[in-house]
Amino acid sequence: MNGAESLVKTLVAGGVEVCFANPGTSEMHFVAALDKVPGIRCVLCLFEGVATGAADGYARMADKPAATLLHLGPGLANGLANLHNARRARTPIVNIVGDHATYHLQYDSPLTSDIEALARPMSSWVRTSKDARMVGADAADAISVAKSAKGEIATLILPANTAWTEGGVVAVVPPPMAAKPVPDEVIREVAEALQAGSAMLLVGGKALRHRALQLAAAIGLKTGQQVMAISRNPRIERGAGRVTIDRIPNPVEKSIDRFNALRTLILVDEDAPVAFFAHPGKPGKLTSATCNILTLAAASDDIVGALEALAERLGARVSDVPRQALTRPDIPTGALNLENIGRALGALLPEHAIVCDESITSGRTFFASTQGAPPHDWLQLTGGAIGLGMPMAVGAAVACPTRKVINLQADGSGMYTLQALWTQAREKLNVLTVIWANRSYKILHNEFSNVGAGQPGDKASSMLSLDNPALDWVSLAKGMGVEGVRVTTMAELTSALQAGVQQTGPFLIEVSL
Amino acid sequence: MNGAESLVKTLVAGGVEVCFANPGTSEMHFVAALDKVPGIRCVLCLFEGVATGAADGYARMADKPAATLLHLGPGLANGLANLHNARRARTPIVNIVGDHATYHLQYDSPLTSDIEALARPMSSWVRTSKDARMVGADAADAISVAKSAKGEIATLILPANTAWTEGGVVAVVPPPMAAKPVPDEVIREVAEALQAGSAMLLVGGKALRHRALQLAAAIGLKTGQQVMAISRNPRIERGAGRVTIDRIPNPVEKSIDRFNALRTLILVDEDAPVAFFAHPGKPGKLTSATCNILTLAAASDDIVGALEALAERLGARVSDVPRQALTRPDIPTGALNLENIGRALGALLPEHAIVCDESITSGRTFFASTQGAPPHDWLQLTGGAIGLGMPMAVGAAVACPTRKVINLQADGSGMYTLQALWTQAREKLNVLTVIWANRSYKILHNEFSNVGAGQPGDKASSMLSLDNPALDWVSLAKGMGVEGVRVTTMAELTSALQAGVQQTGPFLIEVSL
Repeated sequence: MNGAESLVKTLVAGGVEVCFANPGTSEMHFVAALDKVPGIRCVLCLFEGVATGAADGYARMADKPAATLLHLGPGLANGLANLHNARRARTPIVNIVGDHATYHLQYDSPLTSDIEALARPMSSWVRTSKDARMVGADAADAISVAKSAKGEIATLILPANTAWTEGGVVAVVPPPMAAKPVPDEVIREVAEALQAGSAMLLVGGKALRHRALQLAAAIGLKTGQQVMAISRNPRIERGAGRVTIDRIPNPVEKSIDRFNALRTLILVDEDAPVAFFAHPGKPGKLTSATCNILTLAAASDDIVGALEALAERLGARVSDVPRQALTRPDIPTGALNLENIGRALGALLPEHAIVCDESITSGRTFFASTQGAPPHDWLQLTGGAIGLGMPMAVGAAVACPTRKVINLQADGSGMYTLQALWTQAREKLNVLTVIWANRSYKILHNEFSNVGAGQPGDKASSMLSLDNPALDWVSLAKGMGVEGVRVTTMAELTSALQAGVQQTGPFLIEVSL
Repeated sequence: MNGAESLVKTLVAGGVEVCFANPGTSEMHFVAALDKVPGIRCVLCLFEGVATGAADGYARMADKPAATLLHLGPGLANGLANLHNARRARTPIVNIVGDHATYHLQYDSPLTSDIEALARPMSSWVRTSKDARMVGADAADAISVAKSAKGEIATLILPANTAWTEGGVVAVVPPPMAAKPVPDEVIREVAEALQAGSAMLLVGGKALRHRALQLAAAIGLKTGQQVMAISRNPRIERGAGRVTIDRIPNPVEKSIDRFNALRTLILVDEDAPVAFFAHPGKPGKLTSATCNILTLAAASDDIVGALEALAERLGARVSDVPRQALTRPDIPTGALNLENIGRALGALLPEHAIVCDESITSGRTFFASTQGAPPHDWLQLTGGAIGLGMPMAVGAAVACPTRKVINLQADGSGMYTLQALWTQAREKLNVLTVIWANRSYKILHNEFSNVGAGQPGDKASSMLSLDNPALDWVSLAKGMGVEGVRVTTMAELTSALQAGVQQTGPFLIEVSL
């Protein structure tokens, strides 16, 4: 057994079932091992940013890591932006990055670069295997790190000779770092703060799943305090039968309004709220100077356990929490505008849909209009590195083949990783992509004045516009084997959505805004 | 004057005329400054890998740096693969990477990452501006580093508040590090080695321009020794009236055959030859253990001066060197195969064409068949990170608007940065893209057995194939505003090439192989 086979066997033994891959020469033995060792589904991506974004989407839905297979430093570099997003979502991922044979590095041949240095900013754990005999154990450590309660990105660099040399040993995955119990004194302190009033539970990450949300809502109901989430989250379980959670609006002024009167902000798998960007003259920290920030549970803690203990101490009962009713909007008629589009999504979202939302400016009304739809998951861009939506949809569809994935996609962001459509076609993934074709980096029109740059002149305007030439998404999709349609009226959009959610396999709707 | 304006004015004063950009919020003041300060052409790219690859192509043709404008760590990360290629080509580039305001970094807001760490592996020089007053001076240093004789990548990180704060000062660019004269004793040692026989001049980098090639050929002619280049080069001036140089074949065995009998290998702006990848049981170093390797001139040296001194010492005269005759192949008839395609390129390549060659496996015959075409430049992938061809064509066309750029493009590599086609359409760039649609990572079929992995099984084969679904490049181009045609016969290809070289603006030919 060579090192590559021991790696694949260790991945299988460690519960890694999927590998999103763009291999090169240095990864050929790993690819060969996939033929010999059953148990891994290998999904080819035509760009590494698709592979890493897909691994993020997969793990958000499967709650376990996928592997990626990347080709040396440049292949890893191409995947870093979506690893950045995954890191911010606390998504577990095991990256396998091929490198030159250890004895070949001395020659500094053309594809040589400092892979560890490139990996570190977006990884919690980086290791280069030194020897075929160590590859299995190294892979096991990587899986263990990724599977820790917090959710980590582990990057294992595999020199080609450690892959092809005999002597590989399959390793048992060490127990991942378990969620830490939250001490009683923290529970007590948080309980007292809630009872004192002027408090808010700010709930994020894994606390946005149904069980945790019920508990948080029960605590809020019992104490009369607010329960909120921020506006960008890795995955929210929502819709009819679930507990609806409000989100803090994104603009700095509006978020400050929400936080301003608080005496205590209580974090549940969430960071203290800060402005996404600095804007001249506006604060970076969104809470007031006098606000006391407590952490009930961090990502590495037993979040549900902490909420249960807090609910018990307060006498808060999940059974008292009202569930979201099934209340869909009517299918709208009239103009094709964002408000009506939001209603159409609310009216037509299928049960158990997985919404991969990279709508950016276009999507601001969609969250509210879909809250009474049948139960579904809502996945968002967490790290701000655009180009996640289409790859994330690939990963979510691989994780949940029986569910409909709906990718709400801004056009400018979509262009970053449009190669994902090819993988959707190849794997016949059940993804409906809806492109908001405003033909502009519209968010930057607002940001231009937010940062005090005034009004854009001719050159600046042209840097924010995608209309010359207009992108033709139906042709782009066709070029990668995905059927699509362009809609210019509300009636056309409605029937395209109706058809799209029925269709098996990928479909794309370009909405001319 | 704010920091951003001082930056733009310093760039203009330093001779930087073009900026390949994908800006975000943190770069809005730079964008605003472009409206206020004339002298920079700002070219929007819909992905950062396009921007960095375009900057590479631009500088290879303009012999001076362009700037890039990139958005924080993820934006830089998206551009790293083509910066890797540029570094291997010794291309000068000034990267401007926006960052959060200095005082905002403490909050670790979602887009925060370690930009300096990401920049270092692909940059010779990295600096973060600390203050609006320093931005001009920092930019001047960056330009100076980039313009050094060697050709360097300088990355300047610009926190948003250093861009928007008043107090900017335009700086004068310090003199770049000049080319170092080569000592007489080196000239003498090389001359003696050539006279002793069994020697080869291995010529690369800047030494592949007309004047240096003439000198190298004269030296070879006078001493009866070989003059060769490797198979991947940043830019060769070639064709009728130029000096033709042979290239070392790429496979390890064949290159070893060429180097094996040498007593002395003399490097002229080239590295000692090594295998691109390690292959089991094959050497990494391509010269024999007894071969003496001398460096006549490194990239930072006065290369032409060294060749002139060597020629003079040897009594070698440029006027004795035979020039390449104009000898085009006839337009081929018959089957659409790589040999005939090579002939068609040789028959139809227009005068002063700039060939951006990322043909990978398909292009192996094209170099020989075009050597008697009218004078032209041939630009290649130097660093092995695929996805350079289309962006490089953008940059070359911006640098040389009156010349025809011909991008010979493998399909798998083309998919990495296909967004470049949109910029070609937007800027009406004179680029003819020819896609070799073999629908496979064909090079990996060979590498699979080269690394001893045997024959690919079903899963491995599927990782190397792009045929399910087939990419439709005519639709992909149409989606980005570029007209295209698919050809399936030699006659169709010939007439498409004839039309394509006549057309002004971008055009794409998909060649079904």
